[in-house]
Amino acid sequence: MTNSPVTARPFAPASRLWADLSGPALTSLLTERSIAVVPIGAIEHHGPHLPLRTDALVAEAVATAAVERVAAQGIDAWLLPTITCAKSDEHHWAPGTLWLEGTTVLDVLIDLGRSIAATPARTVVFINGHGGNVMLLGWANRELRRRFGLRTFSMPAGVGGPGDGLDGRPDERGQGIHGGFAETSVVMHLAPHLVAPEMPARNVPEHIAGLKHIGFNGKPVMFGWTSDDFGPEGVIGDATGANAEYGAELFARGVDFVCEALAEIEGFVFG
Amino acid sequence: MTNSPVTARPFAPASRLWADLSGPALTSLLTERSIAVVPIGAIEHHGPHLPLRTDALVAEAVATAAVERVAAQGIDAWLLPTITCAKSDEHHWAPGTLWLEGTTVLDVLIDLGRSIAATPARTVVFINGHGGNVMLLGWANRELRRRFGLRTFSMPAGVGGPGDGLDGRPDERGQGIHGGFAETSVVMHLAPHLVAPEMPARNVPEHIAGLKHIGFNGKPVMFGWTSDDFGPEGVIGDATGANAEYGAELFARGVDFVCEALAEIEGFVFG
Amino acid sequence: MTNSPVTARPFAPASRLWADLSGPALTSLLTERSIAVVPIGAIEHHGPHLPLRTDALVAEAVATAAVERVAAQGIDAWLLPTITCAKSDEHHWAPGTLWLEGTTVLDVLIDLGRSIAATPARTVVFINGHGGNVMLLGWANRELRRRFGLRTFSMPAGVGGPGDGLDGRPDERGQGIHGGFAETSVVMHLAPHLVAPEMPARNVPEHIAGLKHIGFNGKPVMFGWTSDDFGPEGVIGDATGANAEYGAELFARGVDFVCEALAEIEGFVFG
Amino acid sequence: MTNSPVTARPFAPASRLWADLSGPALTSLLTERSIAVVPIGAIEHHGPHLPLRTDALVAEAVATAAVERVAAQGIDAWLLPTITCAKSDEHHWAPGTLWLEGTTVLDVLIDLGRSIAATPARTVVFINGHGGNVMLLGWANRELRRRFGLRTFSMPAGVGGPGDGLDGRPDERGQGIHGGFAETSVVMHLAPHLVAPEMPARNVPEHIAGLKHIGFNGKPVMFGWTSDDFGPEGVIGDATGANAEYGAELFARGVDFVCEALAEIEGFVFG
Amino acid sequence: MTNSPVTARPFAPASRLWADLSGPALTSLLTERSIAVVPIGAIEHHGPHLPLRTDALVAEAVATAAVERVAAQGIDAWLLPTITCAKSDEHHWAPGTLWLEGTTVLDVLIDLGRSIAATPARTVVFINGHGGNVMLLGWANRELRRRFGLRTFSMPAGVGGPGDGLDGRPDERGQGIHGGFAETSVVMHLAPHLVAPEMPARNVPEHIAGLKHIGFNGKPVMFGWTSDDFGPEGVIGDATGANAEYGAELFARGVDFVCEALAEIEGFVFG
Amino acid sequence: MTNSPVTARPFAPASRLWADLSGPALTSLLTERSIAVVPIGAIEHHGPHLPLRTDALVAEAVATAAVERVAAQGIDAWLLPTITCAKSDEHHWAPGTLWLEGTTVLDVLIDLGRSIAATPARTVVFINGHGGNVMLLGWANRELRRRFGLRTFSMPAGVGGPGDGLDGRPDERGQGIHGGFAETSVVMHLAPHLVAPEMPARNVPEHIAGLKHIGFNGKPVMFGWTSDDFGPEGVIGDATGANAEYGAELFARGVDFVCEALAEIEGFVFG
Repeated sequence: MTNSPVTARPFAPASRLWADLSGPALTSLLTERSIAVVPIGAIEHHGPHLPLRTDALVAEAVATAAVERVAAQGIDAWLLPTITCAKSDEHHWAPGTLWLEGTTVLDVLIDLGRSIAATPARTVVFINGHGGNVMLLGWANRELRRRFGLRTFSMPAGVGGPGDGLDGRPDERGQGIHGGFAETSVVMHLAPHLVAPEMPARNVPEHIAGLKHIGFNGKPVMFGWTSDDFGPEGVIGDATGANAEYGAELFARGVDFVCEALAEIEGFVFG
Repeated sequence: MTNSPVTARPFAPASRLWADLSGPALTSLLTERSIAVVPIGAIEHHGPHLPLRTDALVAEAVATAAVERVAAQGIDAWLLPTITCAKSDEHHWAPGTLWLEGTTVLDVLIDLGRSIAATPARTVVFINGHGGNVMLLGWANRELRRRFGLRTFSMPAGVGGPGDGLDGRPDERGQGIHGGFAETSVVMHLAPHLVAPEMPARNVPEHIAGLKHIGFNGKPVMFGWTSDDFGPEGVIGDATGANAEYGAELFARGVDFVCEALAEIEGFVFG
Repeated sequence: MTNSPVTARPFAPASRLWADLSGPALTSLLTERSIAVVPIGAIEHHGPHLPLRTDALVAEAVATAAVERVAAQGIDAWLLPTITCAKSDEHHWAPGTLWLEGTTVLDVLIDLGRSIAATPARTVVFINGHGGNVMLLGWANRELRRRFGLRTFSMPAGVGGPGDGLDGRPDERGQGIHGGFAETSVVMHLAPHLVAPEMPARNVPEHIAGLKHIGFNGKPVMFGWTSDDFGPEGVIGDATGANAEYGAELFARGVDFVCEALAEIEGFVFG
Repeated sequence: MTNSPVTARPFAPASRLWADLSGPALTSLLTERSIAVVPIGAIEHHGPHLPLRTDALVAEAVATAAVERVAAQGIDAWLLPTITCAKSDEHHWAPGTLWLEGTTVLDVLIDLGRSIAATPARTVVFINGHGGNVMLLGWANRELRRRFGLRTFSMPAGVGGPGDGLDGRPDERGQGIHGGFAETSVVMHLAPHLVAPEMPARNVPEHIAGLKHIGFNGKPVMFGWTSDDFGPEGVIGDATGANAEYGAELFARGVDFVCEALAEIEGFVFG
Repeated sequence: MTNSPVTARPFAPASRLWADLSGPALTSLLTERSIAVVPIGAIEHHGPHLPLRTDALVAEAVATAAVERVAAQGIDAWLLPTITCAKSDEHHWAPGTLWLEGTTVLDVLIDLGRSIAATPARTVVFINGHGGNVMLLGWANRELRRRFGLRTFSMPAGVGGPGDGLDGRPDERGQGIHGGFAETSVVMHLAPHLVAPEMPARNVPEHIAGLKHIGFNGKPVMFGWTSDDFGPEGVIGDATGANAEYGAELFARGVDFVCEALAEIEGFVFG
Repeated sequence: MTNSPVTARPFAPASRLWADLSGPALTSLLTERSIAVVPIGAIEHHGPHLPLRTDALVAEAVATAAVERVAAQGIDAWLLPTITCAKSDEHHWAPGTLWLEGTTVLDVLIDLGRSIAATPARTVVFINGHGGNVMLLGWANRELRRRFGLRTFSMPAGVGGPGDGLDGRPDERGQGIHGGFAETSVVMHLAPHLVAPEMPARNVPEHIAGLKHIGFNGKPVMFGWTSDDFGPEGVIGDATGANAEYGAELFARGVDFVCEALAEIEGFVFG
């Protein structure tokens, strides 16, 4: 008639945050179907109009919303603390950027993988808010797979291709990758008080848009740029006319995408 | 009669968060008297009753409150993002702990120092919520000084000596260092919904309390313990009777201490 | 009437191979417009029908042909020795694979960059025959830019997107990425004596082809696969019907692409 | 009636020095109760009056005396070679200092731990003569515990708190931490021929002594100082009146402390 | 009546090149008696008359000839891809040199060893064309033995002692170690089109030849030279009169030596 | 008539030990002609009859005697602390050996080089008692030269070739490299109380002595041996009949050699 200590579940708050749980609660709740979701952003120069934490803000907001939604749908996703500072060496020239060496971030990810592999969870998903992390995450996916046997995935917080990946204005010609129309709109939606009332001047690298092979995303030739290659303000794109309404739409689209992707991952790994 | 672009200040929100600023705003606002305040915690097993993020929670809460207060008093302190995962190798055995190798954390701190040194700020203060980071921070203080010329300081988020450093119950005999009366009380104050209604059994290592030379803090002989040395629950102390009132008092005392220390640092460096 | 020693040019053979030159000849011939072209491949399992050196073979063949052609057109390209063994951790399970840790390859590339930066050349282009190197090269591009001020580019030896990147059979559904129709055809063109007379069974991961978000290339969700995830033979694709004629066509297309890209790079950097 | 080869003990000299033994003798004599005692010092600037090897001298002398005494009392302690050069980055500015990067020393300690773990001994005790090693040793204690399962301890060669730890003159106000009254007295006792006849001028950082939170030892705020912060001579304290008699007393007290601590360690680990 | 798939041997070309095989062919053909032969050279300044790839050229040519000959004699030797760039820090000052940090090369060799240890082969032999690699290879031999249990050997591509090791002119007094008579002759034999028609001036460090203890090879005192210590051309020796006939003789002698040595190794390991 | 502070020399004891000096004395006494002499040994298994510290003992004794003698002859040599534990991975299997990873020792040497380069001395000489350090020292010589501009040399403590390098009994056939006749004799001379009364059985690897190319020293093929390849006692040689008289002679010869070599170095660098 009594609850034996053996069957008693440790206390667990109603939360999908990994670190809100106690260790025993986490061990008790997680299973091999659990998915560890890790937002990763950046603290880096985004022009005079956006906060340094733009990428961390977006990654965390999208991942938080997505984890809550998919968890309600029965996917056992858990949100780990956001990796705020990451691989921002392309903005190393700009004071305020908190950039880590790529190998430092890789070590952080490997150590996280080792820690996660000590729990029942076998799947890790990185939700990435910063284009400069894409290569690193592709690399880390494989390290964590080989070293710890984890199933690993990475995806942008937005809906575009690899990179910052948010849809911009047509006249940005696909070059609105840093502090441009889309990103500015999303921050205006998420944290309007952090956005300057004045937008910086349009700064679209037309010469790159016109190239056939070399480009930021979706073209076959990658190049080792730093953000001051395109002007002293470190903006690549055109934030003119950015607005919170469009930001809300993009944000919703980003959350939808991540939710769909998490569901697809669950089917792919366990289905 | 017009604002020349040269003299125009970049937009800056009313915030003491480093990463809320844009890069140009940060460059414009910070001076050589600015102090970069970095909370550092841990995500680690704290027994069945406390969340994994206990140390990160406390460090961030204390640092946030302190930065706001001292800034209002004219000290130019800025809060950087919390380092959530750090050196928790003493809890590596406990699933849920997200522990980084010590050398990984050291690299993170060195990279942060390099980034901060690229701004006008010359002073860094670590507010530490986790005893296992103390040695690392002492080491990092000197690395950042030697490598980048920064003035560096580290202190516990609480008022005790080096370590988790919060006052416990007298009958914990100074051994309430992990998940004990004081720490549990503070979390009950800061995040009551994350604390289990039942406290774990008292687990005070009486044999250590009785030693003359060996001990956790304040004794001359250090030792290489892991938290499962003291029982399977990973608690060291006695959380019985912990309460939010005492937690609020301790928290206030911690914030007072950090504020006083920041003021003392300002006088020491610039006075 | 005499050749003064000062104006005498060091002897240089008629060659576009960097290492065919003597040190003084190289110093004398290269200018700030020179482009160092570095083929990078892999020595890794490619199924029972293809040689381990498939990726190194293709990268070197394409790069050699392209450097000769563009040099004849007045682009000052120089071919460095092929990096044969590289980041093949996804095939680490397969005996014969000579895989280097990613960080080892990164160190090799950084050291190469340092060496190249000591010459008049300021531009480096990696011609890559192995999909597993793509992330690494994107990372290395930026390291060499930041550390040594080099202008850096990377591209596939073929014409596809990032990765092995050669067109396959339509019924491979875009999954013919390793030992499939296209790659086998190219090796049949370049080194027919190294290709087995019997092709392995079709091995197209249909379940991945059908996914919306997760995929090898061109889809937004990357994953940490190893090649034995898709069957014991380590082939991903369908080599049935591969033939040297199609291989010749693909090879020609690859060389055309690299030549065009090198010309575009010259215009981009110096134009 | 004959000694069988199996039971024959290898020859062993009457010595408590680990390295005086042969390998087989060490294997034969050591048991799981054996304690490996490792003195660690520094070769670093100690002002114009003290030898560079002050810290190595004191650590070795104290450890040697203590091992002999406790061995005579039945504690199976063995003295390993002194680590002479260690973490002296706070004196890197001073010619003559032989300083190792902290990570180098950490690697040395990890390698030593691996070696010790291959013998029957399971316990390691560091006797430390240099305050700058304290953090490192606390860190190393845990690494050796986690990696090799060793029981690890560290303690100052003197009787004070963490740091150089010897009692000074009252008017040094607790700041006599480097080349001050106590340390000079001990060297006058141990190696009078190495001490200059003239003492440097008093150099007590009064401004620090008067601080409430920031300090060298025993105060909660640590800071990243280098020894030239306190004047060009690199002395912190007041050696005026130092004398061999007081040095002898301090030395005896240090040996007593270490002996007591070793006995306590034995009881703690094996009792 | 049919060949069952189980007993079918994978296709293998008639080649002794490791990387010409497919993975399954390699697994099928190699046994524990197989010997992995790894040529290692350098891309480094060799004076105005020799190509940068002199050492890689010689190592590869000698190793290729030797592997073919011993394989025909029943020794199961397999040739791996040449390591072209290696430890050339003594020529780091000379543009064109592609030098890797010693630790980078060591990591490459360790990774290769790990890969080879995953095949049936248990023996690795390095054929070295560059004196600057000798120490590194001696070190690597032991690392690969200890870490992976491989039997490891290293030898010069020529017949001399450790180092570049080719016989020179008597009046070079044993100092013809870099771009001198012997090496130049061998390159004239192997790649006459890459050798300048004019030889550089004699540059024999007579002062070293006359020393009793200090020297390049065969003397007990080693020293940390760089090749510009001996003049701006980076040549050490006297190439006057070098000729392809003598080069052919030296090359033949080098191949004979390596063949003999490989046979001796087989007897030593397996005999 | 008064001593001006400018001309006052800091106190310096009558000692040639670097670390006996104070920092200011060292700065005052050393010049660009000063030579930093660093003994390096090993703590490793040397059979059942010799102490683990054999190599450290010999290196330190030879170096000490040599520095005193050449200093009396006007060469400004200074003795640094002995590096006792070094690269002994070939004895890693034998309990009692204190072996460091090769890269750890390399880091120690680089850090020492950085420290020495901060003094007036520009020349470093390693006196080596352990064959396993030879490759490492050759490597380190070049690193210290390239990184810090130091003139660097390494030599055996004995008179033989590279390696332990002491003459043995003729019937050891040149294989008495570890715990054999010569080394045992030297230890009987230097520390008779540490040598066992019974010598181990003769253990000369005749099969190696008979080889033409493969060997420990002076043969062109190096191999990756560990000392247990030659029997369980870890001895390579024949200590039978070893005696202190011969040891005294060898020791004297070793000191003579090192003195001659130091004089030659002085002439080579400064002459």
